[in-house]
Amino acid sequence: MLANLNANQTIGKHIYKDELKPLQDRLAALQQRVRAAGLPVLIVFEGWGAAGKGTSIGKLVNPLDPRHFDVLTMGKISDEMLMRPFLWGYWCRIPSKGQITVIDKSWHRIILPEEREKWELNPQVTDNFYQDVNAFERQLTQDGTLLIKLFLHISQPEQARRFKALEEDPSTAWRVKPHDWAQNKNYDAHLKRFEQMLEMTGTELNPWHVVEADDRRYSGLKICRTIVDAIEARLEAPAGKAAAPAGNAREERASFPKVLAGVKADQYIENAEYKEELDFYQTRMNRFGHKMYVKRRPVIIVYEGWDAAGKGGNIKRLVAELDPRCYTVVPIGPPTPHELGRHYLWRFIRRLPKDGHFTIFDRSWYGRVLIERVESLTPEPVWRRAYDEINEMEQHCSRHGAVILKFWLHIDKDEQLKRFEARMNDPAKQHKITDADWVNRENWDAYEVATDEMFAKTHKPHAPWVVVESNNKKYARIKVLKTVTDALDEALK
Amino acid sequence: MLANLNANQTIGKHIYKDELKPLQDRLAALQQRVRAAGLPVLIVFEGWGAAGKGTSIGKLVNPLDPRHFDVLTMGKISDEMLMRPFLWGYWCRIPSKGQITVIDKSWHRIILPEEREKWELNPQVTDNFYQDVNAFERQLTQDGTLLIKLFLHISQPEQARRFKALEEDPSTAWRVKPHDWAQNKNYDAHLKRFEQMLEMTGTELNPWHVVEADDRRYSGLKICRTIVDAIEARLEAPAGKAAAPAGNAREERASFPKVLAGVKADQYIENAEYKEELDFYQTRMNRFGHKMYVKRRPVIIVYEGWDAAGKGGNIKRLVAELDPRCYTVVPIGPPTPHELGRHYLWRFIRRLPKDGHFTIFDRSWYGRVLIERVESLTPEPVWRRAYDEINEMEQHCSRHGAVILKFWLHIDKDEQLKRFEARMNDPAKQHKITDADWVNRENWDAYEVATDEMFAKTHKPHAPWVVVESNNKKYARIKVLKTVTDALDEALK
Repeated sequence: MLANLNANQTIGKHIYKDELKPLQDRLAALQQRVRAAGLPVLIVFEGWGAAGKGTSIGKLVNPLDPRHFDVLTMGKISDEMLMRPFLWGYWCRIPSKGQITVIDKSWHRIILPEEREKWELNPQVTDNFYQDVNAFERQLTQDGTLLIKLFLHISQPEQARRFKALEEDPSTAWRVKPHDWAQNKNYDAHLKRFEQMLEMTGTELNPWHVVEADDRRYSGLKICRTIVDAIEARLEAPAGKAAAPAGNAREERASFPKVLAGVKADQYIENAEYKEELDFYQTRMNRFGHKMYVKRRPVIIVYEGWDAAGKGGNIKRLVAELDPRCYTVVPIGPPTPHELGRHYLWRFIRRLPKDGHFTIFDRSWYGRVLIERVESLTPEPVWRRAYDEINEMEQHCSRHGAVILKFWLHIDKDEQLKRFEARMNDPAKQHKITDADWVNRENWDAYEVATDEMFAKTHKPHAPWVVVESNNKKYARIKVLKTVTDALDEALK
Repeated sequence: MLANLNANQTIGKHIYKDELKPLQDRLAALQQRVRAAGLPVLIVFEGWGAAGKGTSIGKLVNPLDPRHFDVLTMGKISDEMLMRPFLWGYWCRIPSKGQITVIDKSWHRIILPEEREKWELNPQVTDNFYQDVNAFERQLTQDGTLLIKLFLHISQPEQARRFKALEEDPSTAWRVKPHDWAQNKNYDAHLKRFEQMLEMTGTELNPWHVVEADDRRYSGLKICRTIVDAIEARLEAPAGKAAAPAGNAREERASFPKVLAGVKADQYIENAEYKEELDFYQTRMNRFGHKMYVKRRPVIIVYEGWDAAGKGGNIKRLVAELDPRCYTVVPIGPPTPHELGRHYLWRFIRRLPKDGHFTIFDRSWYGRVLIERVESLTPEPVWRRAYDEINEMEQHCSRHGAVILKFWLHIDKDEQLKRFEARMNDPAKQHKITDADWVNRENWDAYEVATDEMFAKTHKPHAPWVVVESNNKKYARIKVLKTVTDALDEALK
């Protein structure tokens, strides 16, 4: 693909001048329309060293109102990024509705050897790199983001010329690094890498635009035209077609194993045994927490379950003996307007643990297929595609080395009523019960259907669901502690 | 102070048990009251290496609901922090209303030699360290934060014993670093440093609580009691006294030089000259921007001025030839509820530039003494103390090496009316004029008074105000470009 391409397309000075100005005017006008339409636009620049990414971005944003775009320069990867799955830093920076974000060096960088070294990646990650990247891009596009991917292509002699020119000017000499010359010397090997990347990640939904960039005028025009065309096409697409395909929108209402109906919620533990086991497992938790820190393995724990099932008290016992500098408990409520401006996974992914740390989510991304489904807060095709999105996200974390456990705290309907009433009658606990709890209770059956489907679709070996019988809170606490410490023990082997 | 203190206070096992539980229960109850009262609580742990900060924090948070506190472990300083003024990372993490944040190693760390090395601080920063720290703490406290500072003190032999014990256990040996032993060997020199720190930053408003920590039971009790007492005292203080002294609340309404009244807003530049100068200064801007990047100097530019004075277009010309990867333009609107939950400077400080980058604020923290004053959105004692807060914040940035420039874009009242009417009559520009603009226009005189006082109180050699005559937009653009490039030229010398 690249090999057959003539990087040296040229264009005359006058044609350039005549064509550029109207394109820039169109782009400036489009920026206003993008804001008005609430369209998130993500423009990715990749390409050879010295292919002119910086200059091209400069020309591109020149006509834009500088208050309403972002340019992300990811030249140096921050240590915050290096301590998390490699897509994390990009997820955190996706544009909100109406925003234009330009990225200079994106997640595709990982195909370069000098980048891989920095990240110290698991083989699992590199082996599945293209799958994770394509899932990420598809998720953004399905959510309505316009993703425009540009690859700037220059020839070997042109690249050498540019490196030399940079080196000869004392004010720019520092920009040429040893790995730049290595790229030029091993041009053919890199060409193969780039071609593979273009092929593997150039999907129908998110194709690459290769820009011949030996001539700066030619590439400048082509970049500008590509972007203007893409934005115009999206803004002018008929409403129905504007959104990307919605995934498994038309899936049959299948029937799933009735897991919850079969659970005996009233498992029991004696008080004396409870005290002994609590002490045993909390000590174990402390020791393993410490070891996970030393081994730099992150842990993600999700709590879901019926209202009043005892999540708060359960979490408290789980972390009681953990070093408080190593864990965070994240309570999840309804999304804020700020959070609604982006893909629904954004607010969870931002909170993922650093290597060696625990994050415990008190409710989670599963709200998408539980409350949002049951209360029709989200259209069916959208929550349906969340099963894939969730699986892909957890898979990505797992490949990075995360231990993932998901608990469903289960009580039966009678027990819930008893607890609701106890809360109503205790002034110190009245704040813990709200109208929403009673509404959820009325939807019990619908939640049971949604939960069973969730189990069927998102229970994975690397991110299992564990139903915790919680009529007896003490039993439930021990079961969670035992499950978590067993999983850590296994992970530490 | 420390030298005369016996670190080896002990307490019997039984007394400990009897006293701890009731204290922990009180603390758990207080957490609910802190949330209900919307009180931000910041608890700082400092002290000798191996003084038991981690363990103490663990015991402290044990009775708390883990969903509603944060523990910040600042052991390793992130590269994001190293690229900004040293208080920046702590500013970004201040607790919001009702939140309890515990910091293990705070801004006081900078007194330690091994920390100073990492930061590569300007002498200006180290020389004024205590002033900046005390200003930061005072600002938080005046804003309503309860700040509790604990210093854990152990004796030299006890510290040595603990390092040895850690080293002997293979699972903890990694925690003892060479600088730890250096601290123990040079115990007396460190003692002097710590004493100086305690003396210089132990203010009446924000005193230190020194905890004798050779005996873990004694220190555990004392820490818990100190915190419980401090929170209770604050929650039970009469409303008027709860808040910290408000600063210059009762200052006389002095009269300030009438700067704006003397400005001739209608300076003019010929078209041909404009084009020539624009080209000259933009090229200069590009070159200097590049040099600032290489020298890792950050630049902060503030735009304030009358509505319709042409800020947007002016900013656009200023950045037109800057590398877009080196600057960010931050438009400032009314604060969101999320932002209102913290000190008003928080949302600006978060956006301060990295070293080598430009941040341009389109409106700024000066809104506190402009719109918030004129429209009585903020009580007078609160906006009055903002002059000091602003000066201290800009001073802190300047010491770090930032170039700071503040522009007031000035048009006269007739010119504004002309522009408002032109906007009303142009469908493409109607969105740029709102009712708020007309309200502001009615308050013209009040703004003029506020602006003159702002100039008088916040015009500083390291952060000057420049009034830009803007009836002629082209003149205004050249004046800003010239002022900025001259300042950069000076800074680069």
